[in-house]
Amino acid sequence: MKRAVIVGMGLMGGSLGLALRRRGWRVTGVGRSLARLKAAKSLGAANEVTTDPEAAVRAADVVVLAVPVDRVVPLGRRLKNFVKPGALVTDVGSIKGSIAKAFADWPHFVGAHPMCGSEKTGVVHARRDLYKGAACVLTPVRTTSSAARRKARLFWSSVGAKTFFLGAGEHDRRVALVSHLPHLLAEALVLTATAGDGKAWAPRVAAGSFRDATRVASADPALWAPIFAMNRTALRRAASDFKRALSNLLKAGPDEKILGDVVRRRALFE
Amino acid sequence: MKRAVIVGMGLMGGSLGLALRRRGWRVTGVGRSLARLKAAKSLGAANEVTTDPEAAVRAADVVVLAVPVDRVVPLGRRLKNFVKPGALVTDVGSIKGSIAKAFADWPHFVGAHPMCGSEKTGVVHARRDLYKGAACVLTPVRTTSSAARRKARLFWSSVGAKTFFLGAGEHDRRVALVSHLPHLLAEALVLTATAGDGKAWAPRVAAGSFRDATRVASADPALWAPIFAMNRTALRRAASDFKRALSNLLKAGPDEKILGDVVRRRALFE
Repeated sequence: MKRAVIVGMGLMGGSLGLALRRRGWRVTGVGRSLARLKAAKSLGAANEVTTDPEAAVRAADVVVLAVPVDRVVPLGRRLKNFVKPGALVTDVGSIKGSIAKAFADWPHFVGAHPMCGSEKTGVVHARRDLYKGAACVLTPVRTTSSAARRKARLFWSSVGAKTFFLGAGEHDRRVALVSHLPHLLAEALVLTATAGDGKAWAPRVAAGSFRDATRVASADPALWAPIFAMNRTALRRAASDFKRALSNLLKAGPDEKILGDVVRRRALFE
Repeated sequence: MKRAVIVGMGLMGGSLGLALRRRGWRVTGVGRSLARLKAAKSLGAANEVTTDPEAAVRAADVVVLAVPVDRVVPLGRRLKNFVKPGALVTDVGSIKGSIAKAFADWPHFVGAHPMCGSEKTGVVHARRDLYKGAACVLTPVRTTSSAARRKARLFWSSVGAKTFFLGAGEHDRRVALVSHLPHLLAEALVLTATAGDGKAWAPRVAAGSFRDATRVASADPALWAPIFAMNRTALRRAASDFKRALSNLLKAGPDEKILGDVVRRRALFE
């Protein structure tokens, strides 16, 4: 029986545990909070749980660092000498550049970014089909072996993700545009609409379009502050592209022809 | 039996017809397309339909100009001398400043903006509960009588809307922030993400947050181009407030404390 160790039993780690167990893996859940680990076990996300990652990873075929993105690098460094030779190490962080740099000499590491987060967090929201159909970007490091690449692809595909490889820097620029920028815009929109007496007025006149546009602004600050900090360069560039697009739109009206083009481009995402 | 004439049998007019008929009104649906009028009648949104608004409005107690916002003023001018003295005239346009100006000397006119639009259009999507619980801003003109104000409030409340009065200019500034700006941002975001090779890449890496943030960018260009054009001044001001908020957010990280403040402000809209 294959053994997986998942460090971090939140929404992502918990869902992965549920999916892996269903496919016959033996799953060890690792975390710092005994209460959370107990919940993960009773929800079926792990066969056993422990607060000792060094001991847990020794026998693992796959180690998944499912902790918040700013904790991936310190955790990986801490565990590196304990991982079984040849075992695949992967993560679920939404930024890959700094991780790829820190683990550049780790031939069995393949970064992963399964794109199925949500504003919900915590193992109580874990679902065994969370990864089903989700895009999962795989970012090898400079020295990643072809065996590790293959293993990573098989591993993430096995829980239903649609995997593809991308350079870590390229990944960060692309997610800045489609994920981090939309979050930042939603936040700036909430602040703009609620400035001054907007706090009282905006909720009275806001309709569904405002709530849709700002839903992601409810996401957990403890998750998002590190994301913004770690991807600041790409995010600044995306924001400046965005401001230019906004100014051009305003200059152009925008008229029906331009809006028609937008509708066609938006349809690519359905 | 009270008689209402609704000019424009789209989503808004059709839904109003369904709601009024359920409350015992006799509803005449007016439009230019015989096919659309036939559909409106067979869906139950009107007792009878006609392409002749001048004749229809003579016997009406309430006339609702449910046409696209850029057609409200020309239509009102055309019908003004045919409306029964004392009959309430109202509309559903999402911009009120230019309408209030054009109808300033019409004591029985009260502008209305029921905030329950959708990216769906057309009478086939009409629902008799569309107005139920929706905020409906009422914007009297300079000469509106107190009788007309009262009638307007009763009329829109009777279909379930939560009405409140606001100056037309004030209304336009507020909806620029909570409605027109979010639309424009969604459009600029789609253009930014799909620039260059983004057309191929963005849909591969975009998750639910991108789709939520840009859903309104699918709205009908024929409806929105006039809205942007008619509210350009307020929209430009809102966009410039927004750009400043975005720059400030980026400068600030944004850190957990600021994001926590955003989450609390966003909760005001739930």
